Amino acid sequence: MPKKEENQGITIKKSQDFSEWYNEVVIKAELAEHSVIKGFMVVRPRGYAIWEHIQEYFDNRIKKLGVKNSYFPLLIPEKFFKKEAEHAKGFAPELAWVMDQEQREKYALRPTSETIMYDSYANWIRSWRDLPLRLNQWCNVLRWEVKQTKLFLRTREFLWQEGHCVYETEEECEKETLIYLKEYKELCEELLAVPVLEGKKTEKERFAGGKTTYTLEALMPDGKALQMGTSHNLGQNFAKAFNIKFFGKDEKEYLPWQNSWGFSTRLIGALVMMHSDDKGLVLPPRVAPTQIVIVPIYFDDKNKIIKKATEVKNMLKNYEVELDDRDGYTPGWKYNEWELKGVPLRIEIGPKDVEKKQVVLVRRDNNKKEFIKVTQLDKKVKETLEDIQNSLFNKAKKFLNSSIVEAKNWNEFVKQIKNKKLVKVFFCGNVKCEDEIKEKTDGATSRLISFEQPKKLGKCVHCSKEGKFLVIFGKAY
Amino acid sequence: MPKKEENQGITIKKSQDFSEWYNEVVIKAELAEHSVIKGFMVVRPRGYAIWEHIQEYFDNRIKKLGVKNSYFPLLIPEKFFKKEAEHAKGFAPELAWVMDQEQREKYALRPTSETIMYDSYANWIRSWRDLPLRLNQWCNVLRWEVKQTKLFLRTREFLWQEGHCVYETEEECEKETLIYLKEYKELCEELLAVPVLEGKKTEKERFAGGKTTYTLEALMPDGKALQMGTSHNLGQNFAKAFNIKFFGKDEKEYLPWQNSWGFSTRLIGALVMMHSDDKGLVLPPRVAPTQIVIVPIYFDDKNKIIKKATEVKNMLKNYEVELDDRDGYTPGWKYNEWELKGVPLRIEIGPKDVEKKQVVLVRRDNNKKEFIKVTQLDKKVKETLEDIQNSLFNKAKKFLNSSIVEAKNWNEFVKQIKNKKLVKVFFCGNVKCEDEIKEKTDGATSRLISFEQPKKLGKCVHCSKEGKFLVIFGKAY
Repeated sequence: MPKKEENQGITIKKSQDFSEWYNEVVIKAELAEHSVIKGFMVVRPRGYAIWEHIQEYFDNRIKKLGVKNSYFPLLIPEKFFKKEAEHAKGFAPELAWVMDQEQREKYALRPTSETIMYDSYANWIRSWRDLPLRLNQWCNVLRWEVKQTKLFLRTREFLWQEGHCVYETEEECEKETLIYLKEYKELCEELLAVPVLEGKKTEKERFAGGKTTYTLEALMPDGKALQMGTSHNLGQNFAKAFNIKFFGKDEKEYLPWQNSWGFSTRLIGALVMMHSDDKGLVLPPRVAPTQIVIVPIYFDDKNKIIKKATEVKNMLKNYEVELDDRDGYTPGWKYNEWELKGVPLRIEIGPKDVEKKQVVLVRRDNNKKEFIKVTQLDKKVKETLEDIQNSLFNKAKKFLNSSIVEAKNWNEFVKQIKNKKLVKVFFCGNVKCEDEIKEKTDGATSRLISFEQPKKLGKCVHCSKEGKFLVIFGKAY
Repeated sequence: MPKKEENQGITIKKSQDFSEWYNEVVIKAELAEHSVIKGFMVVRPRGYAIWEHIQEYFDNRIKKLGVKNSYFPLLIPEKFFKKEAEHAKGFAPELAWVMDQEQREKYALRPTSETIMYDSYANWIRSWRDLPLRLNQWCNVLRWEVKQTKLFLRTREFLWQEGHCVYETEEECEKETLIYLKEYKELCEELLAVPVLEGKKTEKERFAGGKTTYTLEALMPDGKALQMGTSHNLGQNFAKAFNIKFFGKDEKEYLPWQNSWGFSTRLIGALVMMHSDDKGLVLPPRVAPTQIVIVPIYFDDKNKIIKKATEVKNMLKNYEVELDDRDGYTPGWKYNEWELKGVPLRIEIGPKDVEKKQVVLVRRDNNKKEFIKVTQLDKKVKETLEDIQNSLFNKAKKFLNSSIVEAKNWNEFVKQIKNKKLVKVFFCGNVKCEDEIKEKTDGATSRLISFEQPKKLGKCVHCSKEGKFLVIFGKAY
C-alpha cells in the first residue's frame, strides 16, 4: 500500500512555470516546506543534511585560515543600530522587535551581528597582540521581508554563517576580504557545482555601513541572477562607531580595519534550481546526503537478492549508500521516488544480474544505464560520481557563459535584459542613474563590477556620462 | 610587554566563594562573558570549542540511532501553546514575545519546540510506514529568567539540542526514552568526566505536558545538584493536542507515542565547576580544545629550541597541540596563562632538555612533573592524558558517592540538607508535600526517584503518610 502513489512525481515542468516547479521540487523532495507562520520555513532532514555538508566543508576551510567559532546574543539593543547611521537605515525596514517589559528596552532579532559583536570586540581588543581577530558564527537570523516567501531564497528566518575579522592594517584586511570571497567561490563551484561570477558591488548595492562589498553571483536557469555570498570590507566605519582601538607596536593608538562575510541556506535554493529537472531534485554527488541507492529486484527470491545487495552495499563503504529493501513498493515506484529525491546514482540488482555477477548503474543526471561487473564496481562508481559532478558544473558553466552579453546602447540593453541575459555595459556608478535603470527595465539591477576592467572606458549605457567601470546588470532574486 | 600581567590569575578561592570563583574562571579562561543585554551571554571561542566537541560526540551517536537533524522556526504562535494546557502553563512565565504588526499575531521566541514541531508532524505522519520518526535540532532557545544570570547555567538565551521522536507503540517509546538517557549518561561520564545519578522526576518536577521525565543529576563541589539532561516520555498528550494520528498495519487509526530529550550549554558550566581549581580552568582531555601546550624555554638559543619544539609538536599529530612561541612573555607567565585556560598537559623544552633528548611533562590536574625521553613521548602522552581523564572522573565520583546519605526522620533530613548532602528518603510523591519540604528547607527539591527501589517502603520523611518511593532530595541550581 504505497502512500501518495497518484501524486508521487513533479507535476509542473521546469520550462513551463519555473517558480512553481521549484516550489514543488523543494516540497516533494522533502527538503523544506512552508511553516504555518507566515514567511517562515521548516528545513526537513533531507534539506538540513545538505546544509550539514556545506557547513562541514566550509567550517574546515575557515578553521585552517585561523577563524574560530563563537556565539553572540540573538537580540540587539535598539541603541546599537543607531551607532552606525547607514547600517541602521539599511536594516530598519526588516527588523522584528522584542520588548523587555522590565528593562523597558527594545531589542531587535538579529538581521546580522556586526553591532552586537563589535561591542564585545571593543572590550577584547587592546593591543596589536590581539590582532588579527577572526571569529565566525553559525546561527539563525531574522529579516522581516514583506515580499512573497520563497523556500530557501526568501524567508523571514534563515540559517547562515557570518565571519567578522579585525586587522591592524588596511592591506591585510583587503587581502583577507578577498580570501573569503575565494573560499566562497570554491565552495560554490567545487562542492555545489554552481559556477559564479566574482566582482564588486556598486554604491547602491553595497552592504549598509561597509566600504566595499565583494559578491558572487550565479545565474539561475530562468535567467535571474542569485547572490551566493558576499564579503564586505568595512573599512574603519564600525571601529569608529563602536570605539574599537588598539595600541600598535609603537605604543600609539590606532583604529583597526574590519571585514564581515556571509552565506546562507539560500545556497540550497541555488543548488536545487540549477541542477534539478522535471523528474525532481538533482544533486551533485559531493553534497548529496545519499550518494547511491541500491534497489533490489526480486520475486520469490528475496533473500538471495537482498544478500547480494547487502554485499554490494558493503563494497561501497566510502560512499553514503542506502539499500531500499522496503516491501510493498515496486522497483519502478522506488526508482521514481529516488529520482525525485535527487540521489545521484542508482544501482539495480535483479536475479539475472546476480547470475552474471553484474549490477546495473543508472545516473540521475542523464539517465544513462550501464551494466557493470561487480569486480569493476568500486572503480566505476568513483569515476561515475566524479563525472556527474563535473558534467553538472560544465553544463551550468556553459549556460552562464552563453548568457553574458554586451550592449552598446540603451535599446540593446533593454532588449537583452528582456531576453533574460546578464548584460555587460559601461556605467557611471551614480545611485540615481541606477535607480532609473531599475525602474525603466522593471527591475534590472547591477550585479557586479567585474574584476577585469578594460583600459579604455566608454559612456554610461543609460545617462551617457563618463563610464566609471564595466558592470554586469541583470534581474535578480 | 605582556598584557594583563597584574591581573592574570584567579583571585578568589574555590573554597572561599564558589559562585564568584566560578564566574571568574569562566571569564578569565575566556569561555564566555556577560552580554550588555541583561541575562544574555557571549560564548567566546574557547567556550564554543567545548560545545563543538560535545556536539560532534553526541551528533555521531544519535545519527547511529537513526536520528536526523532538521530546523524548525524560532517563533511559536501563541495559539500553539494553548493546545496543551499544562505545557502552556509551565512555560508561560518565561516567554518573550514578538508582534507581527501586519498579521496581528503574537509569537513567542521558542523556549522549547514541541508545539511548532508537532504541528508539522501531524502533516507528515500518515501510516505506520512513517514511524518511528526521529528528529533532532541544534538551536538557540529563550527563557526569560528573572533570577540572577549565571554564565552557562542560567541565561535568557542558551544553545541546546532537542530530540523529538514518534513511535507506534508505548513500549518502543519508553524503551527509546531510556536509550537517550543512557546516551546522555555516557556523554557526561565518558566525555566530560562528570558522574551522574539517573532516575525519574516526581510529579512536581516533571516536564510540563509530559507523562514521565527521566533525568541525570550531577553534584557540584558546592553541594548543589545540577540537572545535566532530561528525556521525557510524553505519552500521547501532544499527539492528542496536535492531532497526530497514523494508520496501523491493520488499517485502523491510532494515536502515536512520543518522547523529547534535551541538554544544553549548561553542561559546560557543570564541567567547569566540577574540575577547575584555584589556578583556573581544568578540562578533561577528551573535551579540551587544546590538549597539549608546548612552552619553549630559551635565552639566546631561540632557533635551536623552537626547532626542537616544532619537532615535538609534529610527533603529536594525533592531539590538539599548541606551540606557544610568542616573544615578550616569560615561560612562567605562559605556564600561568595555560593553566588558567585549562590545557590538560604542558610540555616544557629548554636547552638542557634538548641536550638530554628529553622534555618535561606537567599535568594540569595535579601539577605532577616528569622528565620523559623523546623516544617515549608518544606512549607517555597517551597514557598521561588517559590517566588525567580517569582521575578527574574518579575524584568526582568519589565526591558524589560520599555525598549521598540517608535520613531516617525529618530532623536528620533537615540537618543533612544543611550539610549540603544529597539525601535519600522515602517520599509520598504528593506535590503539596514537596512544596512544603522546599519551603521549610529553604529550597531543597526532589532531584530524582532512584531506578533501584527497595521492596519494602517506609513512611514519607515529611508527612509520614505511606512512602511511594525512595527519592533523592538536595538543593539544586
